[in-house]
Amino acid sequence: MSHSGYRGKGLEFLEKNKIEVGNLVKVQADSTYSGILMPRYEHSDDGHIVLKLKNGYNIGLEIEKISKIEIESNPSVKKENISHPQADPSLPKILLISTGGTIASRIDYRTGGVTPALTAAELNASVPELSKIANIDTEVLFSEYSENLLPEHWMKIAEKLNSCSRSEYKGIIIAHGTDTMQYTAAALSFSLQGYPKPVALVGSQRSSDRPSSDAALNLLSAAKFLVKTDASGIFVVMHNSTSDDEIACHWGTRVRKNHTSKRNAFQTVGGSPAFIVRKDSIERNPSFGFIQKPFNPRINFNNKVMLIKYYPGLDPTLIDHIISSDYKAIIFEGTGLGHVGRTMYESIERAKRKGLFIGMTSQCIDGIVRMTVYDSGRDLLNLGVTPLGNMIPETALVKAMWALANAKDSNEMEKIMKENIALEISD
Amino acid sequence: MSHSGYRGKGLEFLEKNKIEVGNLVKVQADSTYSGILMPRYEHSDDGHIVLKLKNGYNIGLEIEKISKIEIESNPSVKKENISHPQADPSLPKILLISTGGTIASRIDYRTGGVTPALTAAELNASVPELSKIANIDTEVLFSEYSENLLPEHWMKIAEKLNSCSRSEYKGIIIAHGTDTMQYTAAALSFSLQGYPKPVALVGSQRSSDRPSSDAALNLLSAAKFLVKTDASGIFVVMHNSTSDDEIACHWGTRVRKNHTSKRNAFQTVGGSPAFIVRKDSIERNPSFGFIQKPFNPRINFNNKVMLIKYYPGLDPTLIDHIISSDYKAIIFEGTGLGHVGRTMYESIERAKRKGLFIGMTSQCIDGIVRMTVYDSGRDLLNLGVTPLGNMIPETALVKAMWALANAKDSNEMEKIMKENIALEISD
Repeated sequence: MSHSGYRGKGLEFLEKNKIEVGNLVKVQADSTYSGILMPRYEHSDDGHIVLKLKNGYNIGLEIEKISKIEIESNPSVKKENISHPQADPSLPKILLISTGGTIASRIDYRTGGVTPALTAAELNASVPELSKIANIDTEVLFSEYSENLLPEHWMKIAEKLNSCSRSEYKGIIIAHGTDTMQYTAAALSFSLQGYPKPVALVGSQRSSDRPSSDAALNLLSAAKFLVKTDASGIFVVMHNSTSDDEIACHWGTRVRKNHTSKRNAFQTVGGSPAFIVRKDSIERNPSFGFIQKPFNPRINFNNKVMLIKYYPGLDPTLIDHIISSDYKAIIFEGTGLGHVGRTMYESIERAKRKGLFIGMTSQCIDGIVRMTVYDSGRDLLNLGVTPLGNMIPETALVKAMWALANAKDSNEMEKIMKENIALEISD
Repeated sequence: MSHSGYRGKGLEFLEKNKIEVGNLVKVQADSTYSGILMPRYEHSDDGHIVLKLKNGYNIGLEIEKISKIEIESNPSVKKENISHPQADPSLPKILLISTGGTIASRIDYRTGGVTPALTAAELNASVPELSKIANIDTEVLFSEYSENLLPEHWMKIAEKLNSCSRSEYKGIIIAHGTDTMQYTAAALSFSLQGYPKPVALVGSQRSSDRPSSDAALNLLSAAKFLVKTDASGIFVVMHNSTSDDEIACHWGTRVRKNHTSKRNAFQTVGGSPAFIVRKDSIERNPSFGFIQKPFNPRINFNNKVMLIKYYPGLDPTLIDHIISSDYKAIIFEGTGLGHVGRTMYESIERAKRKGLFIGMTSQCIDGIVRMTVYDSGRDLLNLGVTPLGNMIPETALVKAMWALANAKDSNEMEKIMKENIALEISD
């Protein structure tokens, strides 16, 4: 029997009542609930069980308040309820690509495991309102939590999107773990510059055994946005507040995950989201400057780039290790306006002599690198360090990996890094 | 003649009128101004000159609107105006230690250079209101922009403070560059835990040739706070908003510079400042939990600690370089709740076998590391990685440098890192 994640009182309660994860159960508590018993992924609380209700939302029920629990059907019977919805020919089509992450593992609610796997039927059973917005095709590209994604995975996603650039889809949703979603968003923004359709990376911050899961609303809002917008390009679509009334569409090169767990963890750095999706409206940010450019896919990355956050006491010989390990570029997260201590200068000089690109961002995250204000900045400019404006450090890293793979020499690398290719420089 | 920082029209204007930096001048424009011509540190604008008025504030004047400019006196005459104020025996004493940074170079307004050097007389001429709050002794400890500070400098400051722990001073101000102020604040918080007096690190975000300089108000507010508070320990005292009506006192282990240039760049991460200083009041944050503990100075740091921000494509052999370079600890800025990709596992395992301490923080900056939620986190826990709660990555790095110097073995290192020593863990 699967009781995945349940322990203590919760486990005891399920064993006593012969209920396992995936069972469709009827529960008598303050009211009567009918839903599927969900696995638990957290270890903090053994006093609740979690049901997925038929409307797709999860609810946590306190064991102490449950007077009766019984099985309505078992998973194999339930399967018959999960069917492909009738396509509505009046609705546009959306492709939903799954890459893994909490949002995808959540959908796999009938088993105790957390293997990320998503089918159209499961999706529609989970968020039935989706079928009223669009006809959704789905495809599992891979199934990884996003901390395990590598530049190779960015390329797979980009190639899939590239193959859909002239397809019948109005837009594309990419279900993705939130841990490295901003890196993937930046990677797609550079490698698919000018992509002619809107693409929404969607994740969820709360695992599916929590009543506050944000997955359904993020997915619905992404679908609404893709169907209605005339914008194109790469967006991250996630909660804009801790309540459920606003979903933000962040531009792919200006977004950062700034909280480990909040549903509104993602923020547009140094500005507001490009769009806000509300229940009945989609609001466009008037100060957001979109760029129109021809679609020019260049799907290559070279990870011989090191991101270094400068700190007092950082050993400058790290740079020499980087040089001797055949790296081609360094992105510094410097201090303040874009500085590193003078103990680093000699190693930086050696790196520049070897032809490495050295770009400067700020560990402040927000604000602009300005290297002409103080002596330290001017010294670094003289050593050949390139200031990267208000580029987010992670975006600068991804851009450098992309530029390195696509530039024919170090001059072109420098030129690409300074050019505003996908609104990564906003000031 | 010194025209430091002036160029183009500005330089031409000064040369024509035979005015140099440091002159006390009378200027006829929309009104009549009397003040000292300040050097300029930025290269963006040649249409203004900047005067320091007698009230200590700076003003930028458009050259086009100046009908007349003449010298009132030269620096050597002016020097007589800069005198030690009469000590007022009814006021408490404050020690002001200068370490350099914009705030200190600003005070050195009579010369064209930006050498950070601060004397009591210069300070009082610059911010005359200070002498109404306290009798201020000053001392130049060193003169460095803070991007050049190293753990050795932290130790110098800590030793100076240690020598003052039983002095007559009500509190101590440390004038410090903002670039690495949060690192120094954390270093003092750990090495001087239980320090019996309030200490305020004060900097300025705007160089002194800008009318919007925040230095004077930050200094005045720090002095007010030190004189009136019954709290002790290490604080960072800087603007709380872009206006001049609120100054924040951030607790030294919970503060981060989150903007490259804004005057309110410093923020208490995951909470509110410990105190807010307003014109007529000092407000204590009721949810801020102070700790009372005996003063226990342990002033040592060992910088064989590497801070690594994880990103997709990070080469795991970096860890092997760290092992072979005799590092003793790694602080990861992991993704999300505290993850790194599984490509890192083998190298992490090797590092643990060699006895390195490996601590996990999050690159999200805000929020708590929770490594029991997902498989990735549990895998890392099994490999011996230590979750560091909501410790700010930079604070965790400084703490690790301190713990390494003060722990007798790796067990004690682990124990110190988990212990809440200076409110570095707030949840």
